Amino acid sequence: MKLTLPLIAFASGLCSQLCLAQTNQPPVEDFKPSSLNQPGKQYPQVNSERRVRARVSAPQATSVQLDIGGVKYPLTKGDDGLWIGESKPQDEGFHYYQLVIDGAQVPDPNSLYFYGASRWGSGVEVPAQDHDFYALKNVPHGQLRQTLFYSKSADAVLQCFVYTPPEYDKDTAQRYPVLYLQHGGGENETGWGQQGFTGRIMDNLIADGKARPFIIVMANSYVPGANMPGRGQAPASTNATAAAGATNSGPAQAGGPGGRRFDFSAFTKMLTEDLIPYIDANFRTLADQPNRAMAGLSMGGMQTRSITLANLDKFSHIGIFSGGSISTNDITDLEAFKQKVKLVFVGYGSREVGGNRPGGNRGGGDPKANVDALKAAGINSVWYVSPDTAHEWQSWRRSLYQFAPLVFQN
Amino acid sequence: MKLTLPLIAFASGLCSQLCLAQTNQPPVEDFKPSSLNQPGKQYPQVNSERRVRARVSAPQATSVQLDIGGVKYPLTKGDDGLWIGESKPQDEGFHYYQLVIDGAQVPDPNSLYFYGASRWGSGVEVPAQDHDFYALKNVPHGQLRQTLFYSKSADAVLQCFVYTPPEYDKDTAQRYPVLYLQHGGGENETGWGQQGFTGRIMDNLIADGKARPFIIVMANSYVPGANMPGRGQAPASTNATAAAGATNSGPAQAGGPGGRRFDFSAFTKMLTEDLIPYIDANFRTLADQPNRAMAGLSMGGMQTRSITLANLDKFSHIGIFSGGSISTNDITDLEAFKQKVKLVFVGYGSREVGGNRPGGNRGGGDPKANVDALKAAGINSVWYVSPDTAHEWQSWRRSLYQFAPLVFQN
Repeated sequence: MKLTLPLIAFASGLCSQLCLAQTNQPPVEDFKPSSLNQPGKQYPQVNSERRVRARVSAPQATSVQLDIGGVKYPLTKGDDGLWIGESKPQDEGFHYYQLVIDGAQVPDPNSLYFYGASRWGSGVEVPAQDHDFYALKNVPHGQLRQTLFYSKSADAVLQCFVYTPPEYDKDTAQRYPVLYLQHGGGENETGWGQQGFTGRIMDNLIADGKARPFIIVMANSYVPGANMPGRGQAPASTNATAAAGATNSGPAQAGGPGGRRFDFSAFTKMLTEDLIPYIDANFRTLADQPNRAMAGLSMGGMQTRSITLANLDKFSHIGIFSGGSISTNDITDLEAFKQKVKLVFVGYGSREVGGNRPGGNRGGGDPKANVDALKAAGINSVWYVSPDTAHEWQSWRRSLYQFAPLVFQN
Repeated sequence: MKLTLPLIAFASGLCSQLCLAQTNQPPVEDFKPSSLNQPGKQYPQVNSERRVRARVSAPQATSVQLDIGGVKYPLTKGDDGLWIGESKPQDEGFHYYQLVIDGAQVPDPNSLYFYGASRWGSGVEVPAQDHDFYALKNVPHGQLRQTLFYSKSADAVLQCFVYTPPEYDKDTAQRYPVLYLQHGGGENETGWGQQGFTGRIMDNLIADGKARPFIIVMANSYVPGANMPGRGQAPASTNATAAAGATNSGPAQAGGPGGRRFDFSAFTKMLTEDLIPYIDANFRTLADQPNRAMAGLSMGGMQTRSITLANLDKFSHIGIFSGGSISTNDITDLEAFKQKVKLVFVGYGSREVGGNRPGGNRGGGDPKANVDALKAAGINSVWYVSPDTAHEWQSWRRSLYQFAPLVFQN
């Protein structure tokens, strides 16, 4: 039976009522403080249903809400002036959120702060079943280096973060491959190192002998002059819808390749003409195409696709996380591509792909079909789906964890 | 004439009225965004009188205040739901602040966030006349390395930041002296690198040939088991008054040496038994007493005094910024001290010292008199007063800028 529009509306209304009934069930009272709280802060907390409970003191307020996953949940005031309340179950992993106090959208004073949705704001960690791969362990640790470099194309001193593997300073004759790893829309160069747990993921993989030690460079693609959505200083006329892709409120609306909203030319110039030469001159890199990879999440995946396809002489391994894929149609010379590209990895959250969910297509067509087509063409191509996650950091942590052991292996 | 109590009260009341009248003068309308705002955010702003103007959208709020320098200033609501208002003139430099929205103490959603006053919260930069020494310039830059190490005494993986000078990775045969540089009460290992601008100060000094390149290690003195005020997870019974020393609301109340509130033993053990050996094993240090210094601000200065006096075999250069001083009475063997200690530097903000201001005395007696006594005893001792600043970061940036050229010179 094909539902007509009124029937769909009715079914939708019914679902809303059922969902509301579920929400009204009292939460399971096994809440524990989030691991991303400020030192000593007891809230926010998360329970075994993966509900987030926030608490804030606002004695004179008349309305306080927890704003997470694109939904605002009312908090209730106690006699002590403390407002408290919880969300519906969230996906496992990291979530940006904020509080709304009498209409003011502010960070929760109890959480650590992370850059996403074009702002520094609150983050909460919903414990994941597979949290072990990014746990802080007593293994040899690499360093995350705040690195300042002069960009001629931007005529500015820019900041990036460079992960160097544990033994980097031990044997100064050793040189390493390099992965350029990009953040998403509305995010910046701090994301992969902070909420992405890049250092912990790599330290643990290397300690387990599962990945080859390599350098990771995390730069900010919002270089001066860039024309992309999601940057705070973008002119007001810029359509900022896609910045939501960096929040958990839904997938980004991807602009068409070459569209005004996704002009990667300034970043491409900075990366290829300034940053890569700087890194090769200042770190002990293996400074050739077989030892250089690029990967990114969401908008960073779109950049990876665009930049690697245009610079096959510079990159041999490609990772696209929730950011589109590469189709055989994108490749002008399939034989040359096959010779130069040693890996095309495409990852997505399970809630982004299939059905009518728009996130599966961020340039290049249907990602799974594209991976299969590349495989059929004899290209080392990998398709990964993160279980029970959406367009969010748990998908990207897992994608990096899957991608890192495959890179620089051939 | 000696004023009697009623007359003092009258004079005080008169002054309050005059000050209030001054406050009611409209501010000079040359406000500019603070350099520590989030990307693209226009507020907070600072004018040439050094007033801080905050703005926040809180359409349903009935009261919004700017809380800075220990004073709450009311904001006024406009028809657009934006609250706006400004503070009295602040000292030049960095200030922690927060907003109070209908009683909720929250970070300003427009600023970057810094750790101080035992919380991550808002910071604003009041442009200083001497800002050039910590300006970001196109000079060779060192790196600020997030470094994880296992502490046996704490049985935990701890984080510190290590500044390596610009040429560190160029000549891998070169070894460097090391300065251990400590934060204040209620602060952590991020303070010197972020609001302290340690990297910029050192990069500029080294580029100008004014300081010898050396390594700086910034650790968190709130190690597990530490019994000191200002840590978030301190038990509720802990007197937290001294944590205010890390804010701009006034100097810390120093506990007596050996008092329960300032027990540095856990930090001392971690520093001397775990961190120093780790740094010497993992960085190219000159690993001997003549090439090891310690300095710190406020509580970190008290730690420096306590730890260096007890470990003269480990440290040769001593810097105490707004954190007490060393008197000849502290020294059991003056000749041995003179042989081993090559520099005692004591710095303060001008508003902390002299008169009845309590900040001048944080252990060891009157700091200026102590410096003079050390000099008279033939010890290389330096007294520095930061003009027109109090117990705040501008005093400590300037102290580091004065201290760095003097250290490791003999």
